Amino acid sequence: MPNTGLWMIGARGGVATTAIVGLAALRRELIPPIGLVSDLEPFRSINLAGWDQLVIGGHEIRTASLASQALLLADSSRAIDRRIVEQCRPDLDETDLEIRPGTVRNGGTAIESVADPGFPIPSRTVLETVRQIQADWSGFCVRKNLQRMVVVNVASTEPRNTSGEPLPDTWTAMESRLDDPGFSLPPSVVYALAAIDAGHSYVNFTPSTGSDLPALRELALARGVCHVGRDAKTGETLLKSVLAPMFAHRNLDVMSWVGHNIIGNMDGQVLNDPANKATKVASKDHLLREILGYSPQSHVSIEYIRSLGDWKTAWDHIHFRGFLGTPMTMQFTWQGCDSILAAPLVLDLARFTELAARRGEAGEMGWLSCFFKSPQGTDEHDFSKQFAMLCDWARQPEHAPRTI
Amino acid sequence: MPNTGLWMIGARGGVATTAIVGLAALRRELIPPIGLVSDLEPFRSINLAGWDQLVIGGHEIRTASLASQALLLADSSRAIDRRIVEQCRPDLDETDLEIRPGTVRNGGTAIESVADPGFPIPSRTVLETVRQIQADWSGFCVRKNLQRMVVVNVASTEPRNTSGEPLPDTWTAMESRLDDPGFSLPPSVVYALAAIDAGHSYVNFTPSTGSDLPALRELALARGVCHVGRDAKTGETLLKSVLAPMFAHRNLDVMSWVGHNIIGNMDGQVLNDPANKATKVASKDHLLREILGYSPQSHVSIEYIRSLGDWKTAWDHIHFRGFLGTPMTMQFTWQGCDSILAAPLVLDLARFTELAARRGEAGEMGWLSCFFKSPQGTDEHDFSKQFAMLCDWARQPEHAPRTI
Amino acid sequence: MPNTGLWMIGARGGVATTAIVGLAALRRELIPPIGLVSDLEPFRSINLAGWDQLVIGGHEIRTASLASQALLLADSSRAIDRRIVEQCRPDLDETDLEIRPGTVRNGGTAIESVADPGFPIPSRTVLETVRQIQADWSGFCVRKNLQRMVVVNVASTEPRNTSGEPLPDTWTAMESRLDDPGFSLPPSVVYALAAIDAGHSYVNFTPSTGSDLPALRELALARGVCHVGRDAKTGETLLKSVLAPMFAHRNLDVMSWVGHNIIGNMDGQVLNDPANKATKVASKDHLLREILGYSPQSHVSIEYIRSLGDWKTAWDHIHFRGFLGTPMTMQFTWQGCDSILAAPLVLDLARFTELAARRGEAGEMGWLSCFFKSPQGTDEHDFSKQFAMLCDWARQPEHAPRTI
Amino acid sequence: MPNTGLWMIGARGGVATTAIVGLAALRRELIPPIGLVSDLEPFRSINLAGWDQLVIGGHEIRTASLASQALLLADSSRAIDRRIVEQCRPDLDETDLEIRPGTVRNGGTAIESVADPGFPIPSRTVLETVRQIQADWSGFCVRKNLQRMVVVNVASTEPRNTSGEPLPDTWTAMESRLDDPGFSLPPSVVYALAAIDAGHSYVNFTPSTGSDLPALRELALARGVCHVGRDAKTGETLLKSVLAPMFAHRNLDVMSWVGHNIIGNMDGQVLNDPANKATKVASKDHLLREILGYSPQSHVSIEYIRSLGDWKTAWDHIHFRGFLGTPMTMQFTWQGCDSILAAPLVLDLARFTELAARRGEAGEMGWLSCFFKSPQGTDEHDFSKQFAMLCDWARQPEHAPRTI
Repeated sequence: MPNTGLWMIGARGGVATTAIVGLAALRRELIPPIGLVSDLEPFRSINLAGWDQLVIGGHEIRTASLASQALLLADSSRAIDRRIVEQCRPDLDETDLEIRPGTVRNGGTAIESVADPGFPIPSRTVLETVRQIQADWSGFCVRKNLQRMVVVNVASTEPRNTSGEPLPDTWTAMESRLDDPGFSLPPSVVYALAAIDAGHSYVNFTPSTGSDLPALRELALARGVCHVGRDAKTGETLLKSVLAPMFAHRNLDVMSWVGHNIIGNMDGQVLNDPANKATKVASKDHLLREILGYSPQSHVSIEYIRSLGDWKTAWDHIHFRGFLGTPMTMQFTWQGCDSILAAPLVLDLARFTELAARRGEAGEMGWLSCFFKSPQGTDEHDFSKQFAMLCDWARQPEHAPRTI
Repeated sequence: MPNTGLWMIGARGGVATTAIVGLAALRRELIPPIGLVSDLEPFRSINLAGWDQLVIGGHEIRTASLASQALLLADSSRAIDRRIVEQCRPDLDETDLEIRPGTVRNGGTAIESVADPGFPIPSRTVLETVRQIQADWSGFCVRKNLQRMVVVNVASTEPRNTSGEPLPDTWTAMESRLDDPGFSLPPSVVYALAAIDAGHSYVNFTPSTGSDLPALRELALARGVCHVGRDAKTGETLLKSVLAPMFAHRNLDVMSWVGHNIIGNMDGQVLNDPANKATKVASKDHLLREILGYSPQSHVSIEYIRSLGDWKTAWDHIHFRGFLGTPMTMQFTWQGCDSILAAPLVLDLARFTELAARRGEAGEMGWLSCFFKSPQGTDEHDFSKQFAMLCDWARQPEHAPRTI
Repeated sequence: MPNTGLWMIGARGGVATTAIVGLAALRRELIPPIGLVSDLEPFRSINLAGWDQLVIGGHEIRTASLASQALLLADSSRAIDRRIVEQCRPDLDETDLEIRPGTVRNGGTAIESVADPGFPIPSRTVLETVRQIQADWSGFCVRKNLQRMVVVNVASTEPRNTSGEPLPDTWTAMESRLDDPGFSLPPSVVYALAAIDAGHSYVNFTPSTGSDLPALRELALARGVCHVGRDAKTGETLLKSVLAPMFAHRNLDVMSWVGHNIIGNMDGQVLNDPANKATKVASKDHLLREILGYSPQSHVSIEYIRSLGDWKTAWDHIHFRGFLGTPMTMQFTWQGCDSILAAPLVLDLARFTELAARRGEAGEMGWLSCFFKSPQGTDEHDFSKQFAMLCDWARQPEHAPRTI
Repeated sequence: MPNTGLWMIGARGGVATTAIVGLAALRRELIPPIGLVSDLEPFRSINLAGWDQLVIGGHEIRTASLASQALLLADSSRAIDRRIVEQCRPDLDETDLEIRPGTVRNGGTAIESVADPGFPIPSRTVLETVRQIQADWSGFCVRKNLQRMVVVNVASTEPRNTSGEPLPDTWTAMESRLDDPGFSLPPSVVYALAAIDAGHSYVNFTPSTGSDLPALRELALARGVCHVGRDAKTGETLLKSVLAPMFAHRNLDVMSWVGHNIIGNMDGQVLNDPANKATKVASKDHLLREILGYSPQSHVSIEYIRSLGDWKTAWDHIHFRGFLGTPMTMQFTWQGCDSILAAPLVLDLARFTELAARRGEAGEMGWLSCFFKSPQGTDEHDFSKQFAMLCDWARQPEHAPRTI
């Protein structure tokens, strides 16, 4: 099987860096495959790409090396064992060569402020930006001899609305504006458009818009491209999608569900900007209604607490009524390392998506909903049912182990 | 549809008292059906018995009235709204007339110590006890004109091993010993045997042995009787069966799972006896292996803390490794009211079991596993899959709504 | 000893209602003196007013009876045992007769919105309002034959700044504006001014301004009146003032202290208005710097969660570095009943203040700092040192038990 | 000022290793003095020994090098930053040269099982063991040119009762038995006896008996030696001594206080032996009565959970009644690193004790009670009062900064 490209938007952020270190460590057999969904039993016998078949590239707006980012995660956050980073250093340095300047045009001031001066590609028309991005990909595919590539957005969350005017509803309407210097799109949409237009699969790991637009859904079907999003669930929302069904199945009346999240990495810093935070909170807050069938009072906060580094803590307080109206309480805390929880899912999504593309599937991959807070292509939010959808997909005859 | 008997062993304990108050309140439309699984949408259109078709009776070893027990739950534990108890008082007084002295023979010293002197029926041979119990039931069914009855064990937990010798493996072997004065059985087994032998459905809500014996499984099939157990899950174990699948489906490596339970009601007091506690802890501790496929270090404690009354708090600490081996932590607390959580499930189990019996089913009802810590008739411990089993059962054609 | 008046601003709020029920229950010996600081050993032998020497009156902007408010606390919030309310009902009805319409002029829209229409006294000049308030007090003192009265503000929190212009700095400047119809003062200041001017002791239980102004400090000394405030500490801030010294005394470096508060009573509802919330958060947030000597990153939130009723839960996450820079974490939850925690302190403060007034003390009572988040008259925030100040005050010779 | 010896019993355990790494890092100015009480402002101006005046030696029953133990803490437990260990490696190797085989005679099977075969000094009479230990010290003092030495016990906890017979009550009685081969003493007592007899100050950091015996108190006064203990408080018990006074000072009725501790280091492993655990639990459980003046129901557990390594988590559930009898709850979790919390206190105690000895003090140092769960020489358990005792000691004229 030929190699597959895994191209990350935000390639030196915590999630991407950890995915890159982890992939290197898996190849060198330094670590067991813990945290990787695609290594679970139901998926071992379908023909997913091997660790040594994934080739990494990416766009980024900061210049620091991958190794320095990885050591920061090791030393400041105690997120990664320093010895692993040291052993994988050659792989990190090699990957650095395939990281290109990205775009921040229209990404909001919080994102612009973390960009290294002069590094991002200058803003021109959307079309020029798209063509530059696609040129980066063409070069990468040629150099690495890749037949297929998956683009994954792991960049910081964009503000919710970046311009006053609504985005065009159809691909025709959108396409006609692309070379208008007065027209702009959020960066996540620009990358999604570029990927789908060029025939690359697209995965949106963040709450930003990405491909979740009628115009891009249309384009994806026209081009025969797989895509999915958005906002990987790795903590509080994952737990909501696991616990809310329990309350529903026991007919317990959830009166209020309060969730407070504190986090100290760059993701948290960007979310500290109210515009960017609104995008995230919206993504975390709607599934209760969809699982419970009613809307308990809910409150979600995210605060940037520097000292936590890459760690996040969620505290949730669930107030519910049982039989005879008696109020009771469940509380949980989730103390996780953001990059560690997210990174393996990037590798999983790349593998599942690559196989779907290889099999000729196209459009939104709703069967990947167990990975997302706001899954495209399905309304299912119950985690166990979402996971069953993934297993069902894997059990389809075309995924069966090949007999020789 | 004729009325159905719901006979509770331990009829004035917290769970039974709350179920009786709750049933009265449902009939009087004082409360909405919160906490009742059988009132959920998938089960509304099958032909379950209505609230006014259930007639209560029971065995008990204490003499205090139901109303006084209910007021204790209202005033000492703030578990039930006192106004509801006051409004339902006539129903409680009427039910008191159908509560008969129970047996404690062989139930362990902790249980014997809470019995009122002179109240339990005297110990004779097992057969005599069985016949006395069955006579109580016959009288009840005649007086109340009942066609069918479900016996539910909600008595305190028995010690794990009440005698040195193993229980007989077959019904033939067991039957031959029943009139031997030197032969004894744990009370939960005596009641289960009496129920099954008399053709009444049997539900074991507790960790005691009940019908979970080869001899009684054999008898149930011979008599065409439905039965199920054991140990209703209403808190920590329910959460384990909901959360453990999440760790499994994300391939997170659970290194240790520590659960500490504190409780202040009579159930807690009886469990304070190490012999009785061992039965309970065993029931709470095995599902991790069955869900995860491996055995993390686990620790479960239950402590009797007087001041909590009918309330219980579970604190669980789950230590797991993610990608790159990084350790992370989830903790939860569950602050629930024991009787409030358990009581509606008694009504649910009675309704589901009655319908199964009416339809002619027999043997262990594995499809009720979502209610139990150690479900009989199935090895499934994943709560969402267990709930799906219940829904599947309800969807069977014979449960479809009848057209007129 | 003659009787003493205890006049509450906000006399039918949760705190006042609970204090009134509690005082009645103490007099009727229905409850032990739990929660009352003034009943502790060091204060039993000084000559504090007895429970039957306190006579209650108050101002209020809502018309519902005390008994109905108390039953709401009993039934909706399970805060008070309903049987106690029923037994104390005659006292509540009698106290209702001494509750007069209050002022909301300038209290902000959140407070105005909870007032019953037509009930508050109409807005005129500040002076007229002051004279009306003082007339209410004169009548009360005459009717009840009181020699001394303590006014306690237990009304909802006001917005931080109610007008653009700064308040006058001196009593002379303030006095000259009182009959100017264009001049206004926050209600808490109006009541404080009225009390001090009339020679009544004044206690500000809330974060509102009250007597904490140079002009009123001046007036208090001129009139020889005791006063103190502000913002009784009963939960999260109490714990901060207890725990922060521990971190300081162990030289542990507090990097961040995050506190999230959820509450469901009217206090929470009023605090849901951002203007009113700002007053409260400011009051909760400054003591860390004063105890630790540096300012860790801190975050305090208060959210109104209806279902909690009179209950509040604080979750605090304290992230600190120890030896060798290793980060560690303490978390706590405080699940308290707001009115239950606060009400006894109202009675304590009335008793301590009355004795100070009887002894001829005047000005700010810094020795009562252990009761307050932002204590007037001292900068001490360490709870143990604050409590020692109270004990020292009680040990002064003039408080010694009188020999006969 | 001449150098001072700091001799640790259990010199390669987690606490000692961390103290040794930390002292080296302080000398090399790699870390700020966080976590060191003796570096707080009130103690900076008294004449405590400097970091470069402390010389380390110790007894140990295991042969692994200090550096390997430190790297284990860095890599397995993420307790210490690996880079610090690497930079301090020469100091660790040098200290290894001054670590001598210790005694395990009578220390219980759990302790014996962790000893390296053949390493501990063979069991003879107590007197011979004492003489061997004292000879180790003499050699150390001569080689290092030390005028004074503090012996600190940081070895694993011994079983509560190591022999059936009670220990002799007087020094005369004890002394007469020392060369009796049938007489034995717990190892902690043997070391304490050896230290005091040789005129070295003695600090018992553990719950073992150490110098807390009438016979050794007598000997210490006779020899003019300072000593103190026992069981350093670094987590749950520290918090109890901080929080219980708050409940007392608010007259809140603590009904129950439940504490569950989980820990994964060797200390936890030894405590897993029920005999050793009993010593520890007893030490953690008595202060509530002494602070509150009554005994709430209390429960303390310690469980060894391997995966936690050097980390420990305490979960405490405090159930209390407030005004009108309303029950409320405080819970906390303390997630600390055992060695990191304890190690700086070893250095603090050595410095304070050395100064006391230098000043000619003798006997039990009750003013060091803020460091201990079961302080010798005082009954004070309120942490803030204990800390005030330490400050008072430091303010004594003889500790004042010397003018030149």
